[in-house]
Amino acid sequence: MNNFFTLFLQKIIDLDILHYQKDFIDFLESKKWVNEPRNLYEPIDYIIKLGGKRMRPILTLMAADIFSGGYEKAMPAALAVEVFHNFTLIHDDIMDDAPLRRGKETVHEKWDINTGILSGDAMLILAYQYFENYEPKVFQKLAQLFSKTALEVCDGQQLDVDFETRNDVTINEYINMIRLKTSVLVAAALKMGAIVAETSDENASLIYNFGLNLGLAFQLQDDYLDAFGDPKTFGKQIGGDIIENKKTFLYLKALEVANKVDSEKLKYFFNQKLQDNSLKITEVKRIFELNDIPLLIKDEIEIYTEKAFSTLSCMNISQESKDGLKKFGLWLMNRSV
Amino acid sequence: MNNFFTLFLQKIIDLDILHYQKDFIDFLESKKWVNEPRNLYEPIDYIIKLGGKRMRPILTLMAADIFSGGYEKAMPAALAVEVFHNFTLIHDDIMDDAPLRRGKETVHEKWDINTGILSGDAMLILAYQYFENYEPKVFQKLAQLFSKTALEVCDGQQLDVDFETRNDVTINEYINMIRLKTSVLVAAALKMGAIVAETSDENASLIYNFGLNLGLAFQLQDDYLDAFGDPKTFGKQIGGDIIENKKTFLYLKALEVANKVDSEKLKYFFNQKLQDNSLKITEVKRIFELNDIPLLIKDEIEIYTEKAFSTLSCMNISQESKDGLKKFGLWLMNRSV
Repeated sequence: MNNFFTLFLQKIIDLDILHYQKDFIDFLESKKWVNEPRNLYEPIDYIIKLGGKRMRPILTLMAADIFSGGYEKAMPAALAVEVFHNFTLIHDDIMDDAPLRRGKETVHEKWDINTGILSGDAMLILAYQYFENYEPKVFQKLAQLFSKTALEVCDGQQLDVDFETRNDVTINEYINMIRLKTSVLVAAALKMGAIVAETSDENASLIYNFGLNLGLAFQLQDDYLDAFGDPKTFGKQIGGDIIENKKTFLYLKALEVANKVDSEKLKYFFNQKLQDNSLKITEVKRIFELNDIPLLIKDEIEIYTEKAFSTLSCMNISQESKDGLKKFGLWLMNRSV
Repeated sequence: MNNFFTLFLQKIIDLDILHYQKDFIDFLESKKWVNEPRNLYEPIDYIIKLGGKRMRPILTLMAADIFSGGYEKAMPAALAVEVFHNFTLIHDDIMDDAPLRRGKETVHEKWDINTGILSGDAMLILAYQYFENYEPKVFQKLAQLFSKTALEVCDGQQLDVDFETRNDVTINEYINMIRLKTSVLVAAALKMGAIVAETSDENASLIYNFGLNLGLAFQLQDDYLDAFGDPKTFGKQIGGDIIENKKTFLYLKALEVANKVDSEKLKYFFNQKLQDNSLKITEVKRIFELNDIPLLIKDEIEIYTEKAFSTLSCMNISQESKDGLKKFGLWLMNRSV
């Protein structure tokens, strides 16, 4: 999703959400993160202040604003989402043995694995505590959605790990994995704003579906851009997924539609760990193009974006708010420009 | 606390709580633990079914029974406590690099560290989900107490880690560490039963204090028995804490009251990792005895037990229930017999 965030920042003024970001960061920095025992809370302070675009909490604030004309009240829920997201980063970085996060040392590198485990655990609990700012009914709705989402994110992370060693992953399984690993948190971030705004259950459910489908579209777009994006505007190295042998939609779709020779070539390349990847990237992309994969993934992105938009029409909000959400979505669709 | 549990089992029929245990285990086994993805949920099924005395959930059921004359309704809260406790076992075993748990392979040994981290995370979330069985006000009270307790357990675990490398730990700091690491969960398990029973806030607070002080008395008794218990009735190896150089109450109190020669000897022994520990154990115990440490710790245990009992007299429950709780406490005080 990093690519989405990078491009999002370029368009952020258009979408007039800079004030959400600024207010959220002010709220974040007004909090005291370091308590006793310091060895537990200093890593939390560190990861929280490492930055990032704060997009998930911004979505919570946006949704609250759309449904109740205000977003101050949604700050604690937005904070819960951001702290949870950062908890997943600490534990995922341990699991991936990642040395860097946002260009800085990861928590388990700067401290150690045990610190990463325990500080992460504490953050998951802290996230729940922020919901205590709400009255019992809202609290229960938020905590219930949060638990469901958090467990789905664990499921998604486990599936992602499982897929690394499996050679029979289907497209449906892949879509399900990215839904769990990334889209449900985008959807839940929006729905939490709706819950705090105490809008109708129907609106809350519609904004969730909007987020879920748009989240899937983002992630598929990310798969596409990783291979076919413009190096000038795409934030990461082109071909990163190919280098890492990641079984993204492009790869899985190619195996589904390509002839035997191309399929075998693909499988061969995706078993290699090379020093120089230029030939591998060129060859894999050629197979993708020969088999119309860029077109097929664009169709898929279109389907999820349209699904997202169709939920907007049912939503009981002002035309202005619908236009805002649609603008947001359309921009995402066109971000490869 | 293992020693407490071992002896507890011997007396369990006296206390007529075998039916709580049986009903809880039936409830536990009626649940389906393994879902998809299996690699996430099989370790959860494994640790949950590894056994144990289920003492914490039994305390929840006992408290609910005392305050409302029934305990069926408290089953989900009791389950939350047990699942949380097992989550701490998985993550603590990773941090301690422990190969065995209840005589079987630990989760990270049987699978791997990443599995232990992720399955543990999922259990912490599952624990919160069990509270969804209650209506919003009860839900919020349970989740709030649970979050506070869970964070305190993390604090306690961090302090325990910090103390390993510190040479200036005070008795007060030690008491605070065992309060956080073990007593608050005993106290919260009882209070959750009180919350589910919807008794007065005062009763809920009193049973919490009863559990907290009795929990401290248990843990100090455990420190005492580890060095001076009867090898026939004490479940673990006598001198285990001395072998491990654990800075328990005995050690810290001895440093406080002993003369310079004895203090230096103690510090010397607590810097050794030996193959044959018999001389070390004998010498350390002799220093403890010369300095009246067994007497001093018994005074301390007495203070916390009396504190626990004094909360009983204020409690608005039947004399029979008070007698039951007192019997439970007295038995604990005398368990070294």
